[in-house]
Amino acid sequence: MTGVVVPIDSRSGRASVEPLVQLVAGDMQRVNRLILSKAGSHVELIPEIARHLIDSGGKRLRPMLTLAAAQMCGYEGEDHIRLAAAVEFMHTATLLHDDVVDESDMRRGKLAARMLWGNQASVLVGDFLLGQAFRMMVDTGSLSALGVLSTAATVIAEGEVMQLASARNLDTNEDEYLAIIRAKTAALFSAAAEVGPIVAGAPKSTISAFRSYGMNLGLAFQLIDDALDYGGSSAALGKNVGDDFREGKVTLPVVLSYRRGTNSEREFWRKALVDRDNHDANLAKGLKLLQKYDAIAHTVARARHYAEMARDALAPLPPGDHKGALLEVLDFCVNRAN
Amino acid sequence: MTGVVVPIDSRSGRASVEPLVQLVAGDMQRVNRLILSKAGSHVELIPEIARHLIDSGGKRLRPMLTLAAAQMCGYEGEDHIRLAAAVEFMHTATLLHDDVVDESDMRRGKLAARMLWGNQASVLVGDFLLGQAFRMMVDTGSLSALGVLSTAATVIAEGEVMQLASARNLDTNEDEYLAIIRAKTAALFSAAAEVGPIVAGAPKSTISAFRSYGMNLGLAFQLIDDALDYGGSSAALGKNVGDDFREGKVTLPVVLSYRRGTNSEREFWRKALVDRDNHDANLAKGLKLLQKYDAIAHTVARARHYAEMARDALAPLPPGDHKGALLEVLDFCVNRAN
Repeated sequence: MTGVVVPIDSRSGRASVEPLVQLVAGDMQRVNRLILSKAGSHVELIPEIARHLIDSGGKRLRPMLTLAAAQMCGYEGEDHIRLAAAVEFMHTATLLHDDVVDESDMRRGKLAARMLWGNQASVLVGDFLLGQAFRMMVDTGSLSALGVLSTAATVIAEGEVMQLASARNLDTNEDEYLAIIRAKTAALFSAAAEVGPIVAGAPKSTISAFRSYGMNLGLAFQLIDDALDYGGSSAALGKNVGDDFREGKVTLPVVLSYRRGTNSEREFWRKALVDRDNHDANLAKGLKLLQKYDAIAHTVARARHYAEMARDALAPLPPGDHKGALLEVLDFCVNRAN
Repeated sequence: MTGVVVPIDSRSGRASVEPLVQLVAGDMQRVNRLILSKAGSHVELIPEIARHLIDSGGKRLRPMLTLAAAQMCGYEGEDHIRLAAAVEFMHTATLLHDDVVDESDMRRGKLAARMLWGNQASVLVGDFLLGQAFRMMVDTGSLSALGVLSTAATVIAEGEVMQLASARNLDTNEDEYLAIIRAKTAALFSAAAEVGPIVAGAPKSTISAFRSYGMNLGLAFQLIDDALDYGGSSAALGKNVGDDFREGKVTLPVVLSYRRGTNSEREFWRKALVDRDNHDANLAKGLKLLQKYDAIAHTVARARHYAEMARDALAPLPPGDHKGALLEVLDFCVNRAN
């Protein structure tokens, strides 16, 4: 065998979400138009809050999955636009409710909606967006897509309740943590990817390939997010580092560091996360413990594992620009932490 | 023309919801079993909270409408059970979110879920129940029923936001008040009644008759509820009287009394509802003003108007036990205020 061996690191070092963005750019414009029109309401407060969220510059990764998957399956109708918009509305509704539940002040570098319009409006506008999401799904007439996304809606809520119940609980083990992120994050990634081939009438094995790709991408994505909350591989103090620490969230870096630690280190985590002794000096000490036990590096390694599962899920599908772009998203996702 | 003329008051004086309860008793048992099974989750907190609400003894009026309407249209399948359960879940989700938004302590004479498990869990379990409601609708395979109920979901949220925006706003006029209760209450009554004939494959005119019946029953129901909050026709201080007063809600009795009042009376309402000068002495004074302007009696009269619209909506349908029971619900509803 001859040829150039491209080492994984160099392949992934250049990875970007840009090829995916380019492929779905035309469809995404239509999604954005639909989102703006469906965020409208004669009730003034609703479009105001919805616009705040929609304009706040999320990556729209979830609806991109729906669009790319449908395109890859040769779909030429309109329903993937509706489903992509529905997916983004479900995500936005979750963010609104999450910020209320977590009492968050900020979202994507801007004030959270609840800080501007209050918890009450955030709960209700979330409900409105969820209702609109279902109306768009109904417009597609696809009961199969409706089934997948309504199931995702309940699973996401279950995941959030699980997270609530496990907050500040240092007995949470890796499996329990995984069950939470699988439900609260990966389920929507999975559903977003799955409804693309569904609406395109693709065969069962293709639908299942995209479901699996989305689920594992979602797990990798959340694992990296949780690693990034502690500054990623550098695990150094910086802007926005330590939000989870201050909120007492028991994410995988903490799970690993806690379980591998000494009794006195466990006592430190207990004081910091349960008793909320979470000032910056303690955050710095926490970061040191994460490094001591390679907790960030191993969280990234876990993410890489799921990214590889996602890659293999798509393996049977024919090569092409779309497949290439979706695979590159996996590398991009994992490399964010470096 | 001979015969005994039954005056409306005596007809309605005996009116009860009992005939309706009897007609749907068998189906309602199945609805209750489905509700219990769909309130289940491997996430412990969810069935606990769901059971608290389900056991708290609501009248289940909305799912009864679905069942009775489907039966009246000769339906013999299973889907009306699923839709009735979905309607009750949507209602329960709304209650959970409402109590958070209104910061209510009590619900149906018991502590509100948020007092027992917190606002966070109330928001999330509401989301879970909404998701489960949509899954049950999807199980029926009726896109038409899904369309009606998903539209109701967005309209309800719009109504709640409108109510939020109009809270403590004494400029609210009767039309604006009606728009709020039409959205937040009547839309679900309407949808509940409409999906019965839809799933039974009834003709368009029948579907529209039930939609109209439900909408107007819902308006009458909420108007009476708002009258009862001030003690009904007696307009006297008593148990649970004045909750809306204390919360600064601008309901029709207040709208009428405020708009008919003198400048100094308007100033009183402003102080009581906007500035929250809402101690018992002021509630007593408010009740006197409601009586002075017949505000409760006229609220009940308005309710009677919508009840008559609901009655006429069903008029073209053939007579029978079901129709009789549904008409009796109208009288029962209006007479609660006496």
